[in-house]
Amino acid sequence: MKQSQLFTRTLKEAPKDETSFNAQTLIRAGFIDKVGAGIYTFLPLGLRVMSKITNIIREEINAVGGQEILMPTLVPKENWVATGRWDNFDALFKLQGSDKKEYALGATHEEVVTPLIQKYAFSYKELPIAVYQIQTKLRNEKRAKAGLIRGREFLMKDLYSFHTNQADLDAYYEKVKDAYFKIYERFGLADLTYLTYASGGAFSKYSHEFQTLISDGEDHIFICDKCHVAVNREIIEEQNTCPVCHNPKLKEEKGVEVGNIFKLGTKFSAAFDFRYRDQEGQEQDIIMGCYGIGPSRLMGTIVEVYHDEKGIIWPETVAPFKVHLLSLNEDEAALKIYETLTQAGIEVLYDDRNLSAGEKFADADLIGCPYRVLISAKTIQVDSVELKKRAEGKSELIKIKDLVAKLK
Amino acid sequence: MKQSQLFTRTLKEAPKDETSFNAQTLIRAGFIDKVGAGIYTFLPLGLRVMSKITNIIREEINAVGGQEILMPTLVPKENWVATGRWDNFDALFKLQGSDKKEYALGATHEEVVTPLIQKYAFSYKELPIAVYQIQTKLRNEKRAKAGLIRGREFLMKDLYSFHTNQADLDAYYEKVKDAYFKIYERFGLADLTYLTYASGGAFSKYSHEFQTLISDGEDHIFICDKCHVAVNREIIEEQNTCPVCHNPKLKEEKGVEVGNIFKLGTKFSAAFDFRYRDQEGQEQDIIMGCYGIGPSRLMGTIVEVYHDEKGIIWPETVAPFKVHLLSLNEDEAALKIYETLTQAGIEVLYDDRNLSAGEKFADADLIGCPYRVLISAKTIQVDSVELKKRAEGKSELIKIKDLVAKLK
Repeated sequence: MKQSQLFTRTLKEAPKDETSFNAQTLIRAGFIDKVGAGIYTFLPLGLRVMSKITNIIREEINAVGGQEILMPTLVPKENWVATGRWDNFDALFKLQGSDKKEYALGATHEEVVTPLIQKYAFSYKELPIAVYQIQTKLRNEKRAKAGLIRGREFLMKDLYSFHTNQADLDAYYEKVKDAYFKIYERFGLADLTYLTYASGGAFSKYSHEFQTLISDGEDHIFICDKCHVAVNREIIEEQNTCPVCHNPKLKEEKGVEVGNIFKLGTKFSAAFDFRYRDQEGQEQDIIMGCYGIGPSRLMGTIVEVYHDEKGIIWPETVAPFKVHLLSLNEDEAALKIYETLTQAGIEVLYDDRNLSAGEKFADADLIGCPYRVLISAKTIQVDSVELKKRAEGKSELIKIKDLVAKLK
Repeated sequence: MKQSQLFTRTLKEAPKDETSFNAQTLIRAGFIDKVGAGIYTFLPLGLRVMSKITNIIREEINAVGGQEILMPTLVPKENWVATGRWDNFDALFKLQGSDKKEYALGATHEEVVTPLIQKYAFSYKELPIAVYQIQTKLRNEKRAKAGLIRGREFLMKDLYSFHTNQADLDAYYEKVKDAYFKIYERFGLADLTYLTYASGGAFSKYSHEFQTLISDGEDHIFICDKCHVAVNREIIEEQNTCPVCHNPKLKEEKGVEVGNIFKLGTKFSAAFDFRYRDQEGQEQDIIMGCYGIGPSRLMGTIVEVYHDEKGIIWPETVAPFKVHLLSLNEDEAALKIYETLTQAGIEVLYDDRNLSAGEKFADADLIGCPYRVLISAKTIQVDSVELKKRAEGKSELIKIKDLVAKLK
């Protein structure tokens, strides 16, 4: 894309009403715009990153048999009443329609997915079933201060699984756990992300969160260096050793919850009287699991992890463009390179604007594409461009004819 | 995809509380599920169709320079107060957060996009700008009876354009008009879709709706056969001739509004005091246009147009799968064909379920993939499959080795 055609531009000043690094930087760099506290518009650069994040999640969830659906934002009151959450889920936004019908905005979707699957699954032959969506959630958060990390409106991938027995749920739960680490690996977050033991509720001893260490994290976790696992604050109060190796030396760190998985047991299936017939024709309980991961929160987390004082350093898998091409008064040659790279399937943001070298360098550092390609009178003299990785200080001269091969 | 792995199945009975053909049929065939009046979940088959519809729209809107963004559902009250629509837009869902802050759910997004573009466009050099989103809208509709055609929650592609002068808006408006017809053409709806003159508001004599003729349409329009245009009910009361050729013989038909385009003039830019500097440094008014098209309504419209008594007949461009492969007890050969077609990039729904031929035929007709490929003992004897177009009665025997070439 030619940068002159992008309607956004970078801003010199961080917005005064944002305290989180991710929101300040994403707003300054033109990825998001603030509409209200915890409410953002995704701008063209931000939407590109978001669609890469969601596509990676989609691939890994499809790989564990998830079937994608899309549930609504408006969830009728009766669904919430059935599970007892109309009065007991404190972050619900509630509203009334002109026909006096009441709704809560979808903050989670057990209340929709359970009666949905109930319409289709009667017998053990149809189970297990795993369905998910990537959808906008709305939560009446009291505090929305951490940018994309805690929004009132945010994207969520929520997967729900339905099983005939506990062992089948347990096996699927482990598969999803592995899928989550594959997802974090693809975002460059695996090393910093800890499987974190959390309270399990009525149906299992533990549930699990995935916590990524960031300096500004709102959660306190206690990590075991030997096992690369952690426990959260609830658990440490009951048990101050590693739940895997019983190592007593747990280290307190700050993290952000980038996913959670939970064995729901029969909590929701019982609420809707959702049962199945087994091989003997007997009615049996349906056992459920749920698995959440927030793409917009992940985008904020990636920025909290991958940056320096000049701006963002996107991992290649989620970068808005792989290459930021800067032309210093060599527009004809630059255009040719832009077209060559684009035709080779390489995503390029081409800074064709009439700005100084300093302004272009600053923008490229702030926006954070993985590779910067600079073309100037000096590089052209030797049929070359200057190639620099955003994450590294040094640059190298590359012959123009070798550039595609180098970047592929 | 193997049909045995799809969690949905077709239903024998149409749901009693749905009166529209599109909702009855899409629910029976397993494309959508009803959550409340005018509120649906998109199931795997339905989401596949929806993503094809939105991708076609995206391609054509990108081609007229639209930059994709994603605005929020929660729109703060002050944005609506600025334009006077907090009290004057009767389909707004309003709610209050725990911090007493009030919001309306996005029913349209002039109130968000205008202050957004205002942050980036100061001078004539930055204009025109066109931005769009494909996003879920929520409207407090009194009546929600037409299935996907009038939902309380529905997808919308909303494009907004910002110009320095009326001539520039007028030229862009014509470009979008052409883009809309390209979109309807790709859905197989162009012949049935009429550019329909509607009331223009303060800034132009007419706005334009795009009306597709359907027998169950909720709008009455008056068409000119010579010009392939129409006028809506508002206009016919003032002027009962064709606005293009002045033909007095207009024919009344029933239609569904599948798009609308509107010259907003300065209505919203003035509300936010959004002006630009011209070449002389003088402040000037920003002129706006808006352009809507509803992907979920289009899905309902396509079903209203393309069906017979047995079920849906999807146009190839939006079909959930191109081919429905039916095996009658020839699973090994069928699996091989499934794999061959899939590897050739052809989308196949493979009915590998243990059901009777009659049940498989009925499901294929109801679901409505463009091509049905049948493999049975009889066809295998002559190294063939039976190929039948959903839209046509007759079938033909095709050698298995020729099938990919035939379907490509």
